[in-house]
Amino acid sequence: MAFNYLNNIELEKALEIYKENLELLDQVIETEEIEVKDSFGRITAEAVYAKISSPHYNACAMDGIALYARSTFGATETTPVILKENTDFVRVDTGDPLPERFDAVVMIEDVIEIGSGAIKLLNAATPWQHVRQIGEDICANEMILPSNTEIRPAAIGALLAGGVLKVRVWKKPIVGLIPTGDEIVSPTGSPKEGEIIEFNSSIFSSMLKEWGAEPESYDIVPDKYERIVQAIRKASEECDVVVINAGSSAGREDFSARAIAEAGKVIIHGIAIRPGKPTILGVVNNKPVIGVPGYPVSGIIVMEKVVKRVLEFLMRIEYPSGVKAKATLSRKIMSSLKYREFVRMKVGDVGGRLIATPLNRGAGVVTSFVKADGILDIPMYTEGLEAGSEVELTLLKNEDEIRNTLVVIGSHDPLIDVVTDIMRRKYRGEYVASAHVGSLGGIMALKRNEAHIAGVHLLDEESGEYNTSYIKRYLGEGNTLKVKGVKRIQGLMVAQGNPKGIKGVEDICSIGRDGEPVRYVNRQKGSGTRILLDYLLRQKGLSTSDIYGYEREEFTHMSVAALVAAGSADVGMGIFSAAKAYGLDFVPVCEEEYDFVLPVQYAGNRVVEHFIEILGSEEFRRELEVLGGYVVEGAAL
Amino acid sequence: MAFNYLNNIELEKALEIYKENLELLDQVIETEEIEVKDSFGRITAEAVYAKISSPHYNACAMDGIALYARSTFGATETTPVILKENTDFVRVDTGDPLPERFDAVVMIEDVIEIGSGAIKLLNAATPWQHVRQIGEDICANEMILPSNTEIRPAAIGALLAGGVLKVRVWKKPIVGLIPTGDEIVSPTGSPKEGEIIEFNSSIFSSMLKEWGAEPESYDIVPDKYERIVQAIRKASEECDVVVINAGSSAGREDFSARAIAEAGKVIIHGIAIRPGKPTILGVVNNKPVIGVPGYPVSGIIVMEKVVKRVLEFLMRIEYPSGVKAKATLSRKIMSSLKYREFVRMKVGDVGGRLIATPLNRGAGVVTSFVKADGILDIPMYTEGLEAGSEVELTLLKNEDEIRNTLVVIGSHDPLIDVVTDIMRRKYRGEYVASAHVGSLGGIMALKRNEAHIAGVHLLDEESGEYNTSYIKRYLGEGNTLKVKGVKRIQGLMVAQGNPKGIKGVEDICSIGRDGEPVRYVNRQKGSGTRILLDYLLRQKGLSTSDIYGYEREEFTHMSVAALVAAGSADVGMGIFSAAKAYGLDFVPVCEEEYDFVLPVQYAGNRVVEHFIEILGSEEFRRELEVLGGYVVEGAAL
Repeated sequence: MAFNYLNNIELEKALEIYKENLELLDQVIETEEIEVKDSFGRITAEAVYAKISSPHYNACAMDGIALYARSTFGATETTPVILKENTDFVRVDTGDPLPERFDAVVMIEDVIEIGSGAIKLLNAATPWQHVRQIGEDICANEMILPSNTEIRPAAIGALLAGGVLKVRVWKKPIVGLIPTGDEIVSPTGSPKEGEIIEFNSSIFSSMLKEWGAEPESYDIVPDKYERIVQAIRKASEECDVVVINAGSSAGREDFSARAIAEAGKVIIHGIAIRPGKPTILGVVNNKPVIGVPGYPVSGIIVMEKVVKRVLEFLMRIEYPSGVKAKATLSRKIMSSLKYREFVRMKVGDVGGRLIATPLNRGAGVVTSFVKADGILDIPMYTEGLEAGSEVELTLLKNEDEIRNTLVVIGSHDPLIDVVTDIMRRKYRGEYVASAHVGSLGGIMALKRNEAHIAGVHLLDEESGEYNTSYIKRYLGEGNTLKVKGVKRIQGLMVAQGNPKGIKGVEDICSIGRDGEPVRYVNRQKGSGTRILLDYLLRQKGLSTSDIYGYEREEFTHMSVAALVAAGSADVGMGIFSAAKAYGLDFVPVCEEEYDFVLPVQYAGNRVVEHFIEILGSEEFRRELEVLGGYVVEGAAL
Repeated sequence: MAFNYLNNIELEKALEIYKENLELLDQVIETEEIEVKDSFGRITAEAVYAKISSPHYNACAMDGIALYARSTFGATETTPVILKENTDFVRVDTGDPLPERFDAVVMIEDVIEIGSGAIKLLNAATPWQHVRQIGEDICANEMILPSNTEIRPAAIGALLAGGVLKVRVWKKPIVGLIPTGDEIVSPTGSPKEGEIIEFNSSIFSSMLKEWGAEPESYDIVPDKYERIVQAIRKASEECDVVVINAGSSAGREDFSARAIAEAGKVIIHGIAIRPGKPTILGVVNNKPVIGVPGYPVSGIIVMEKVVKRVLEFLMRIEYPSGVKAKATLSRKIMSSLKYREFVRMKVGDVGGRLIATPLNRGAGVVTSFVKADGILDIPMYTEGLEAGSEVELTLLKNEDEIRNTLVVIGSHDPLIDVVTDIMRRKYRGEYVASAHVGSLGGIMALKRNEAHIAGVHLLDEESGEYNTSYIKRYLGEGNTLKVKGVKRIQGLMVAQGNPKGIKGVEDICSIGRDGEPVRYVNRQKGSGTRILLDYLLRQKGLSTSDIYGYEREEFTHMSVAALVAAGSADVGMGIFSAAKAYGLDFVPVCEEEYDFVLPVQYAGNRVVEHFIEILGSEEFRRELEVLGGYVVEGAAL
């Protein structure tokens, strides 16, 4: 157990030490000669010189006549020059070789035919006019591309024009991917309890292809020490680089580190980055072997920040560092002094400013990478960053897309997914990004200028009215518009057959008819659904402390329904469509108004207009009917 | 001949009209279902919903014990809680399902064993701690990706985690490429006179692949009207889009336009862009058929500005518009009021500012696209842009590469290619870009802050000394450093066997021994070689007007040698290495000093330092020996 300690070396320092080690190995990626026409995106292994000039002969660049320029000197409208065919000139087409005794071409439009094979010119020609001279574009023996240069489309043209049909390039480095772990199974639509779907190999493969490497996926290796050592040895013989992707257990990386040490040598174990700390940099069989953490988010970061850099080193290229953009932080981010931290950020253009909001930092949450627009790199020795501070992000999406994305925030409803999808089908170049932070959270996001529009369903306990009083209270009068959304049915979601015999909110504070306490799953603070529950409880004189699971918080109707469907909770409050999606029974409680709030300044925004138009569309109404539990009255401002 | 007129419609208007026409056709790209693991880069054809939740069970997130959180409430150091194995807790590993009666996990590090299957806890657990609850990342039935969305690596992970193994995507649109022209031949290393190598199809194929389309290259079609009509008909049946790439003759596009009109319909012929005006937008068999001009530069621009946009339309996606950067124009650019012009630009970071210089605008010069760093888009109704004005460019290379590129300008010598190649082999992430504008041009470029370093060989006619007096005169004293370069042999390059019997400069003003005048090919004004010739002529009392071809200007030693080698000129002045590269005979005239000039402020620049280091390296000396005609004395400041 020699490797149960971790280093905490700075990323750049770790890479430097690792590269020094790799350099000493003198391990060389091989080269291969390939057809130029198939060389797009490959990297030259040596300088490429033109074999022929382009053009390779003096070529007429116009349809017309070829002549000796001096024979036209002095020609004007009043003193035209007369020339004889075949003696003084010959007729040529574009691309024809210029006859050797001539040095210019006159366009056919400027040639006046005067019969008997003679023509008249009113203007003098200049030598070499309308002639593409030999080597105009490329001279034979001239260097077209230096070594270690990516072959782009125009370069392919230049190489072929220069008579180069084959080119020597670096072979694509083969990167072996070894997933390990007893609980890991290949992707399946029906995993058993305790089985975790192994999708990291597929993510990493795509990343490697994008970087011009060749991924080689190995079978999952169970957590048997000898099997792992054996897998590393085999892969290091067959590949140029090996990535070993450990299960997510705390002890796993030690297992990998020990196995790498047994098969070869561990150079570094533990890098001061988060996520990604337990990274292992090793060498087996003179090949780099890298231990990448098992949690997908950590894995992606380590692929990006470590494996990509090792590939750059092997492939002799530099990948672009990514487009940077300045953005304003919407909220404070805490960071650790001990680590350089990479935080996935949602970025929106709100009122012309880019606003960046940190996404869920959970290492297991791969969807946070699907939603992320950028990565914030927080240096070591930084405690955190204040809300409102200007930061520089590396963008993961292009800025146009970010600028044309409508940021919808607030209460969760699957109808937002429906609008998002219709938007993608109907309007090219327009996007919707949504985040579920509850109704009050949405209103606060508008107040902080972090979103364009918020979905809300907030019951005013005094008036019994929805939304209006909250908007007025938090956002003031006249600053926002209310977009009429839908009426939807809220109720209690229970397992099929309603085993606990829930008939209303009073039953969630009780022992079920089976004698066990009713296990409730709640929504987060500030969500309209929780406010509704609290209101209903108070109406009936019930206390939240009587509810088993009142503190168990979920952020969406769907996740509440998922827990009920899995038997992990007995009941949760939510909308009919979520219950329907999971085949749950549903005890209706009330009908509520789910509307959208829009600061007036965004009313003219094209994507906002399209969003509202979709809310009022027949297509939207039809899709909500399928979801069930909605009354669409047509969107209106 | 209905189509021998051209429109001159603005690009955006033309695309709008064309898309309206395409929309009416209701032509739909088909969809296909593919494995998620192979779906990287494809575009979803419908919204994709999770089939299962992820995690799909409540999973322990730590190695330790699972328990009922309430059973630990009140635990402190002084009042520990004692729990019994199997009754109050069970031991679990990361990834294990949480037993149904428990709701929290305590890390093994916090568990104090007290024997007899009992443990002690000093801290209370909170419900659901260290548990990855069902749906934490993805809820079943939740939308993972909306329609018309590119599938990125993390999305592949999210789909697989959501139990989605297959996904419906748009088929890659098949784009047929039809090259036409009698003079066009497939790529070859030994084209005959009059044959033009067809390399556009290879460039366009690579561009199409980059855009996610599937290129289908057809055989070259000769300029026979019926054959072209037939080829268009066939391709329009087999492909989703057809690109017909006409020969470069003025009349060719009419030919294509007539053929498209016969097979289907021409919507627009002629767009107000330069290059690219003769573009044809047509429809055959309900498919878009686009006539792209034959000159490679025009072709690339039309692919980028027109064909790409049509693909976006068909593929329901939006390509990023490219990274923009602000730069200062190094010189005036004239533009036509009638066209929107796309000018390829060389961009360099000189002293922290991006400086953009227009490249050769010749439509046939494909290497200008290899060298280009960005594209300047000059709107219609603009006469031109003044030197010094700030412009916005679309970058073709990433900004890091541009910022780490040493801009070498001035006199041409193949040794710069040698340095460039060594730089690419030795220093990752460092680049050299060179432009040949002659020695004086190089000095002027330094003066205008357009380059970091200039290669010069300027003979002071009075002192007979090289370079120093020119540097002082144009750049002032103390502002620059001279980097000692090489001594090289200048002479007269003549065909093998020296058929004209050239023995010195006096012979280039004469009739050759074969009775024909000697045809000279000169270098451009401001080049050191031309200054040397003029000096030598004056020394001998000869006049430039006696030289046949004095006005015929070439920009490099190589292009002069290429013309002599091809028999298009009898003699040209140049360096030994160029003559040797072409197997020419060489009449030495003098030895000259080729040095580099460096403004003092760049002396500390890392890439400059490496450039100088390479000039002094053994590797460089060896490579120059192969080129021949140089004396390397070791670079020094």
